[in-house]
Parts: sequence; structure tokens; C-alpha cells
Amino acid sequence: MNSRQLEALFDRLFPINRSITGNGLRKSLAIIGEYIPLNIIEYKSGTKCFDWVVPEEWNISEAYIEDQNGKRIVDFKENNLHVMGYSIPVFGIFTMDDLLPHLFTIPEKPDAIPFVTSYYKRNWGFCLSHNTLLKMKDSSYRVCIESELSEGSLTLGELLIKGKSKKEVLLFSHIGHPSMANDQLSGPLTLVGLASRLLTKKEMLKYSYRFVLAPETIGSIAYIARNKSRLRKRVMGGMTAACTADHGGFTYRTPKRGNTPFDTAVETALKQSGEIFEIHGFSPLGCDERHFNSHGIGIAIGSLMRTPPGQYPEYHTSLDNKDFISFDKLTASVDLLESAISNFESDCIIQAIHKNCEPKLDKHGLYPTTSNKNDKNQETGRLVSIWALADGRLLSEISTGLGISTVEARKLADKLAAHKLIRIRETL
Amino acid sequence: MNSRQLEALFDRLFPINRSITGNGLRKSLAIIGEYIPLNIIEYKSGTKCFDWVVPEEWNISEAYIEDQNGKRIVDFKENNLHVMGYSIPVFGIFTMDDLLPHLFTIPEKPDAIPFVTSYYKRNWGFCLSHNTLLKMKDSSYRVCIESELSEGSLTLGELLIKGKSKKEVLLFSHIGHPSMANDQLSGPLTLVGLASRLLTKKEMLKYSYRFVLAPETIGSIAYIARNKSRLRKRVMGGMTAACTADHGGFTYRTPKRGNTPFDTAVETALKQSGEIFEIHGFSPLGCDERHFNSHGIGIAIGSLMRTPPGQYPEYHTSLDNKDFISFDKLTASVDLLESAISNFESDCIIQAIHKNCEPKLDKHGLYPTTSNKNDKNQETGRLVSIWALADGRLLSEISTGLGISTVEARKLADKLAAHKLIRIRETL
Amino acid sequence: MNSRQLEALFDRLFPINRSITGNGLRKSLAIIGEYIPLNIIEYKSGTKCFDWVVPEEWNISEAYIEDQNGKRIVDFKENNLHVMGYSIPVFGIFTMDDLLPHLFTIPEKPDAIPFVTSYYKRNWGFCLSHNTLLKMKDSSYRVCIESELSEGSLTLGELLIKGKSKKEVLLFSHIGHPSMANDQLSGPLTLVGLASRLLTKKEMLKYSYRFVLAPETIGSIAYIARNKSRLRKRVMGGMTAACTADHGGFTYRTPKRGNTPFDTAVETALKQSGEIFEIHGFSPLGCDERHFNSHGIGIAIGSLMRTPPGQYPEYHTSLDNKDFISFDKLTASVDLLESAISNFESDCIIQAIHKNCEPKLDKHGLYPTTSNKNDKNQETGRLVSIWALADGRLLSEISTGLGISTVEARKLADKLAAHKLIRIRETL
Repeated sequence: MNSRQLEALFDRLFPINRSITGNGLRKSLAIIGEYIPLNIIEYKSGTKCFDWVVPEEWNISEAYIEDQNGKRIVDFKENNLHVMGYSIPVFGIFTMDDLLPHLFTIPEKPDAIPFVTSYYKRNWGFCLSHNTLLKMKDSSYRVCIESELSEGSLTLGELLIKGKSKKEVLLFSHIGHPSMANDQLSGPLTLVGLASRLLTKKEMLKYSYRFVLAPETIGSIAYIARNKSRLRKRVMGGMTAACTADHGGFTYRTPKRGNTPFDTAVETALKQSGEIFEIHGFSPLGCDERHFNSHGIGIAIGSLMRTPPGQYPEYHTSLDNKDFISFDKLTASVDLLESAISNFESDCIIQAIHKNCEPKLDKHGLYPTTSNKNDKNQETGRLVSIWALADGRLLSEISTGLGISTVEARKLADKLAAHKLIRIRETL
Repeated sequence: MNSRQLEALFDRLFPINRSITGNGLRKSLAIIGEYIPLNIIEYKSGTKCFDWVVPEEWNISEAYIEDQNGKRIVDFKENNLHVMGYSIPVFGIFTMDDLLPHLFTIPEKPDAIPFVTSYYKRNWGFCLSHNTLLKMKDSSYRVCIESELSEGSLTLGELLIKGKSKKEVLLFSHIGHPSMANDQLSGPLTLVGLASRLLTKKEMLKYSYRFVLAPETIGSIAYIARNKSRLRKRVMGGMTAACTADHGGFTYRTPKRGNTPFDTAVETALKQSGEIFEIHGFSPLGCDERHFNSHGIGIAIGSLMRTPPGQYPEYHTSLDNKDFISFDKLTASVDLLESAISNFESDCIIQAIHKNCEPKLDKHGLYPTTSNKNDKNQETGRLVSIWALADGRLLSEISTGLGISTVEARKLADKLAAHKLIRIRETL
Repeated sequence: MNSRQLEALFDRLFPINRSITGNGLRKSLAIIGEYIPLNIIEYKSGTKCFDWVVPEEWNISEAYIEDQNGKRIVDFKENNLHVMGYSIPVFGIFTMDDLLPHLFTIPEKPDAIPFVTSYYKRNWGFCLSHNTLLKMKDSSYRVCIESELSEGSLTLGELLIKGKSKKEVLLFSHIGHPSMANDQLSGPLTLVGLASRLLTKKEMLKYSYRFVLAPETIGSIAYIARNKSRLRKRVMGGMTAACTADHGGFTYRTPKRGNTPFDTAVETALKQSGEIFEIHGFSPLGCDERHFNSHGIGIAIGSLMRTPPGQYPEYHTSLDNKDFISFDKLTASVDLLESAISNFESDCIIQAIHKNCEPKLDKHGLYPTTSNKNDKNQETGRLVSIWALADGRLLSEISTGLGISTVEARKLADKLAAHKLIRIRETL
């Protein structure tokens, strides 16, 4: 999927009212299922998931605040951020004093509608721009929230692309926020773009790749609870992706217990990307990756972002919309992940077979006979370097030093192996 | 003890002529004993202390240089730095040529009287300002030193504040210099201030705190020689304090074998102090801490200073006087040590009990229901962070990362423990 | 050997046409043999050396290009770089089109004659300045190369200076390039200068020093192949030297498996040299040291340079001549190596005998009684520091921290040992 196709999908998904459960989430996953063969999984309300319980399902059809002239001041139809997530049904006339505790604005960003939820404590509320609030001069307003909280289920989507090995890389993105762009659709779209590309080269994959799109926190916890032993047995690495479409450079957070070979592959891809990037250690205040990395689970999942959640002013407001993001940046995030996976697939352990001083490369047909002098030297130098450092380490450790991708380094390592100068062992 | 009380004690101690033995030292410790219940210990002259021997006791009643008109050019009564420490008795008329090798000045600081001693080689001398020397035009001078070197003892003061455990923190300061402020009284005053505060919360202390005030080098060596096996068995950490009242930021030197949890507590306190600070490794050219850290002793004692000895021009001269120091800085040094000890007392090993994804904090009553939004997030985030990193490490390692003191972190850890989300083990 | 003597030797060696085999190389080694007692070793053509074979010997008597007027445009007699190394014999008239693929110039350095060889692929060619090429307007030229490729041998020189121990330091420099200064004669001259100095203090040497002057790549590989088991048994460290006479600061590359005590000695010497220097890790694209460090050999050989090969524009051209180098810098390179060896010879393992607080230095006669105050303090402080850190580590680790050479530190350590305060164990 290219930038235009990702934009088209974005346009279909953006208007839908999503929450951590409900029909909006279900519909969003169904649309994504038209692009990649997603399995839809439902966990019933009340399902115990470690310390948590899947909540009742929330659906909403209408919500507004009407002034004394019957004019709708705030209307859910115009922007689904207007209603606090998981609002209980309300219908009645409220004095301004009684209404005010249920109104949420951001005085310092007077045009922005904030994103507010109350998943686990029964409440209701409206989110509106501070400018709108300032115009509300009537003494009382008519309020309507036609919502429903009832037994239902939490929906998530899963796709396993099987490679030669059952060892898996896990790629997770949270889905379940209403109409926001960077902190909602960018993550799922990155994974959809990536999955669509991996599906085209399925036969060549060494590892299996498991994609999970699920609501934040309760979604990842429920998924881990249901799949704990398989995850612990199979997952070799992976990441969560969120906020991957803004104009900032990349930020990658490594897993709690430090780098896996998958993280090295990400790092190599970041170095090759030409973009600005930062790599940080694990944060206990990150996103869903913290549950994967938690005590008793211990799965080494990193976290890819551009500008991290909370570090841009549009975060969790109506300003985090299509104008705020770039589909080129989103596509570059897909490219980065594709490149990381190519590096990871190419990685191997190399051990010199040839010993006792450098091999005479021309004798082994590895000294190019006709070629531009500079190129020749570079390839020769790299062959020599890979051989010289082949002491049982990962190829990826060497490729980073040579300033080339592990994919390129693997081509050279394969040449050396074909001439029995080194031995290659797959990392599986 | 606050800044004013420390100044009052300073004023009583400053005029006294102290040396590594003698009545001035004895009197100084007796005065300090009015503030904290110090045990006075005497080691007799001739006592063997490893490679060293307690020297004869030195006392002095009068010392002066008189010109040919009977005018006293230099008089011990005016400043006790005027006599070289451990000067033997002298009485007679000396030509200027014979006198000169016994006169000590600092030409590049012409107003300063230097501090000179000859503890282990019999000698006598006067220290004077270079300006005074320049005025000495007579051909001969009458010299008098009424001193006595005789069998006696070396005096030191010790205070043990007992906590629940017999494990001790050792706090040492050298005492035994004549009238100087930063490189003499600041260290003992810091420890007196600290001890007076710890005495008020004695019942709450987990560890025991042992304070030792003794002469430099021979005092610490004698103390170690007499207490070696107990020190090696009981002392978990500690520090020497010297030069803690000048206007500079803090310098802390860690023990020879690297950081103990007590040093981490000091580091956390330094970070919280708001003052400029540097932390360096062990120096074999430090003060008394080098004997505690030496081969065969191996007690991990650090060293707290503001501007280190020798690194300020007033060092070891009459210019290191009350004007040179600040009682606010001295009090801040006491505060720092008190805060370090609070951190040390609060430290503990934490291990998660709750496993399998994050605990649902509201369920455990740990999600504040009413509070300022920002505060709420901060406490919640810290609780989550402490739980997430509770893999058997010291709490102090986490608190530093969270930017809070170990005391604050311990309150949060205690909450988590009360809800059986983590287990706390005291560091004893 | 001093700067003038090295220059005189340079002047004798510079004009000789050297290659990786042949009479020029043989003659160069014979001249060097007049200065140091070099053993000349010959390896016959066809000798197998691991993956390599000693090639046929190459000799050349005459080579030129004549224009249609019989004027010699390019003549080997004027500069031996004019002929591609290992050119086969050629005699005939060539059209300019046929000649061109055999002419080598550097268009961006139009005055420089490049250095080109074809050791392992039969070929012939001339190297000339680009300006000369631009003047060649005739349609054809007469070409003559009177060379011979035949069974013979590869020549190298070896000198062992025996110390008390059979443990060796290996010092290698490649010889076998024609008339170039920095990347040819500087390395061998550095080693000749060093050897001539070590010979004068032979009786005092703890270690043995083996000097090897051999052609690049095939020379070092042949030497390793013939001496593998002895090298692996005896060599404790060492280095290659090349490009040591230009005006740049030093660059030292450590061996592949990291620092040996010899490398520490080099580092200490670099710090004491007063010159700018850089220390880098092993490069698989270095010079002959890469064969010593290779799989199956594993000898820890570093590499000393000033400006590294390829990093100055005169490299491998006729511009790398006497004007380009400095005999003072060359001599400073000899000094550096001599100082490194002095440090290495002085190094030892030190362990405190005296325990339990600091020794009383005056009691042991180690506290200078009469001396300038500042000097006294420095020596006393260094004695105390060496004793305090004598926990079984190398003296060289401490000397670096004290800012003195290992030679100076050893004098102090010997004093401490004479008073039984520390125990010294030679590093042999």
C-alpha cells in the first residue's frame, strides 16, 4: 500500500466513532479487513483478564446540548469527540451550574475540543471548544445523550503471516479512539501498510509476523491474558506503533530487558532511513508495550513513534486531525518497519571457516575483475571486514559498523559463505 | 541545630588553640559535649596504632618574638597560628640570620599567617604575615616559646546513636587544627548539627549512626586500630566531612571500591539539594577516608566537601576565618546530610507481587478520585513506574530516575505494598 | 640514530626501485643491514603460504615510451614509479588507442605520477603525470619494458634483540614500494632507528624485540606462515609502523581483541609525547597488522601511524617524496616507540604488603627531609597513591592516572618495594 491508498483508507476510517468497545470499533476493523485478511475476535463483557475485566459495550446514537431557543450548541453528529467516551444516557434540562461539571474545555487552546473518557467510572459529559463555552449565556440547557451500556463484547483484529518458522514478531497498534489522526489512525494504518507488503512476499519469510489491532490497555491486556503461554513461547521481539504520521523524526523505545536482535534491526533501519531519530530505554509510562514487558509476561516489545504521545500540543484534541499529519511521513513509517523486518530476516550468525591470514579474494573469484575502482574497493573492503569480524557474532552488529543495511551485508556474507570462507547460521 | 546555634558554637570554639593532642583539643570536645552526648576517649602517648604511634601531648602557654625595644612583633596571644604546631620550648636571643629558618610566611599572600606544623620531627617556628617579616629590621630578637611535650594522650569524641539495627553508618570529621574556619570547624560543626537532629528522631532510625571527631591522620588511624574488627563487621557506609562551609557547591568523593547504597542516598540528596555538585571517584590523596578505605581495612567511606582542601587560596592560612565561611552554607551541608540519611533509611528492595500486566489501580484504591489533574497523573505514573521496575532492585535506583527523593518514593512503595502489589524488604 | 643519520640512510634508499620481490628490495635490505644486524631471509617463488603463494620474482632494467621523433616521453630511469609494478616485458609500436588502456594518470592531480601495480594478474603499464599525457599528440608510440618475471624469491629482513625473557614484542614494517617517502621509507626507518637504540641497551632488556621488514601483504603472510607456532607462543604484543614521518599527529590502532599491556605502554607514551594523538580500535581494512590479528593467528598487533594511509592527497603518488616528510617527525616517531618500550619494560604488577592504614613514610625513610616543598609533596603523594592502589593491578594503570610515565612510576614503586610496603611482580 502506498501513500495514496493509505490516505483513502484513512478517509473511510476517520469519521467513525470508535471507543474501546462498540459498533464503531467493530466497523473500523471490518473495513480494515477489506485490505488485509484480519481475523475478528470478540471477548465478552465480564471476561476476566488478570486484574481487569472486559467492560460493558458502549454504543451511542445521538448527543447534543440545546439552548433555550432550541439551537444545538454542541452536537455529536458534528464531531464525535463532543461526547465523553462511555457517557451514560442522559436526558433533561440542566441549569448552567449543574451542567458545568460535565463540560470539558481547554482554556489555553480555545478552539480545540478535548478527548475525554470515563471507561470505568459511570459519568457523562460533553467536550467542547472553550470559545463555545464562553458563548453559553443561557441559564439552563436541554441535554441529550442517547447511549447504551450493556452486555456485549470487546472487538479486536489479528493477522498471522506465517513464515518458515513458528517464531513470531509481534506488531501491535491500539485502535479505539474516536476521530483523531496521529494518536489513533496512524498506528493501525502503519501496520496495515506493512502487513499488505509482507503478504506479497509471504513465501520468502523466515519468521512469522503477527499483527494485533486492539483497544488501548484493556485490549492489549485481554489479548495477553488469552494468549499468554503462546506469546511467551513464540514471540522473539516486536513493537507497538503509535503516533507515526506527524512531521517529527522517529523515537524508538527499546524493551524493558534491553535489545533483542529485532531491536538491532530497527536501529539499523533507523540509521539507514535518513531521518532524524532518537533511541531511548523502556518507559514504565509508555503505551501498550508496558503490559507485554510486565512482570510475569516478559515479552520484549519495543515502541515506535514519531513525536511521542503527549509531546505535541494537538495530542488528544480535535486538532489531531488530517491536517496535522502527513501521508508521506506515514508511508515512511511503513518503509522503516519494512526495512527493519528485511534486516531482521537477513540477520544471521557468522563464523569464519577460512583461517590464517586474509583469504586471497581473487583466487576465490571475489575480487571483481571489471568495475569502477572505487566501487571495487568498497565491496572488497566489506567482504574482508565481514570475514575478519566473523567470530560468531550477529551479522547485524557488523553491518551497522560498515554503514550498510543487514540486507546488503547478507548478500556479501552469502558470497563469502558460497566460497566456504565463512559459515552462516540462521538466527532462528 | 539551626544556623544561629551553629554560629554561637563556632564563636566558642574558634579562639581555642587546638592541635592533634593537648588541652585545647580536650576543651573543644568538652564544649561540643554540651550540645551532643559525646563520649571522650583518650589514647595514651606511645600507644602503637599499626605503623604509627600516638605522639607526646603538646601544650603551650606563651610564645612571642620581641624586638630590641621589647616590643612584641609576633605574639601567640593574638593568633594561635603564629606558633608552628608541636614547637619545642625555646627561650633566648637570636640573630636575624639564626631566626630566619624558623620563620614561615607566604610572600604571595603578604597579609596571611600560614598554618605550619612539625608533629613528628622536633623543631620550633613562628608563622607570620610576610608584611610583618618585611618590617623586622633589627639585628637580633628575643624569642620565647613556653611549650611542653610530655607523656599524655590523644583525645577524641565519639557518639553512637542507636537505631533498630546494629549496622552502622560512620560519620567522621577531623578536629585538631587551631583557629581556622572552613578547614577545621566546618566539618565538626556539620556533624554536630546532624547529630543533634538525629537525636530528636532516634526512635525512628533503622540504622545506627556513629559520629567520630578526632585529629587528622593519627586520630583516624588510632581510632581504626582500636576498633578495626567492629568497624569491619558493622559499618555499611559513611563519610568524612570537611570544608563544608565555604560558598562553593558540593564535591562528593565515593569510596575506593565504588558506590554503596549510602553513597546512592548521598547522590539522591545532592540531586534534590538544588545546589551545584560534582561526584568524583576515590582519591588516594584525600583526607581521613583514605585510611578507612585502605588495604586490610576496606571500609567504604566517602568524603563530602564544598571546595576541596587546597583548592581555595585561603586554605591553611589565617584567611580561612569566620569572614570566609557562611553559616547558611554550613546549615545547608547539615541539611544535605540529613536528607541523605532520610533517603538511606527509606531505601528498600522492592519485588513485584502483582504479575501479568499492569494492576488496575482504581480497583486497589490507588487511583485518586479527587485531585488536581496534573498531580493525579504524576502520582499514578510514579506508582505504575515503581511497580513496573520492582524486579528486586533498590528503591533508590528508581527514585533517582523518577526525579524524587527516596523518602517520597518510599511513601509510594508503601502504598503499593499495603495493597500487596509489591513486596518490600528492608536493606538491613 | 638521530635525525641526520636517518636522513642519510633515507637518501641512500630512496632512489632504489623496490617491489614485493627483486633485486631492489634485496639491495635495500642489504643497505639497512649496514646499520643494524639484519638477517636476510629468502622465500622461494611458489612457496605456499596459507591461501597465498610466493609469486615469481620481478626485475626490470629499462622502460620507456618514445614518440615518433625518438624522444623519450616517459622514462623509468627518471622515476621508478613510471612503470606499473610487475609489468611483463613489452616491446613494439602501439597506436595511441591501443596504448591508452596501459597509461595511468590522476587527472585531478595533473603533476603527480600515480603508484600502480598488478602483482597477481599479468599486465603492463606506465604511470605518468596527467600533464604529460595531455602533451601526447602522436598517433603512435614506441614502447619498451625490459622486465623479467621468473623463479626467484621474496626477500625479507629480521632482527631479534634478545632480552632476559624469550617473550617477544614484534615490530613490523612493510618494505617493497618504489621511490616514496611516507608510505614506504618512514616505517622501515622508524624501526631501524628504534633497533639501533635498543641494541645499545640490550643487556638491560627484560623482553626480546623482534623486528621484521617485509613486503606488504604477501611478505607478512609468508612470514606468519613460516613462523606461526613460534609467534603464537612468544609474541606478547607489538605493532606495525607506517606513514610515520608526515607532519600530522599520531594515530594508533589497538589490536582486534583489545588492549594488551604493550598497548597501554604505547598509550602512556602518547600522552607523555606532547603531540596530538588519536587512538582507535582495530580496522579490518588496516595494513599488515590485520593478518597478525586474523582468525587462527590471533596475535595482538597494533598499528602506529601519523596521517593514516589514504588520508593525505600525496598518498601513493610521486608527491609522497622527501619534501613531503620531516626527519624531525620521523625521529619523534622513533622517540615515541622508544618511550613506549621503556614504559613496557618498567611495567609490573603491584600488590600492597603494608596493610592497615597508610604507612608512616618518614619512618620508612620515604619522606624527603630536605627538598623544595612542592616537589616533596608531589613525590610523597605519588608514593602514597601507588601504595593505596596496589591491589594486584598493573603499575601502568596507575601511572596514567598520576600523569607520569611508567618509567617514573617504576622508580617510585621500587622505593616502596625496597621498604617492603609493596610487592612487585614482573609482568613476564
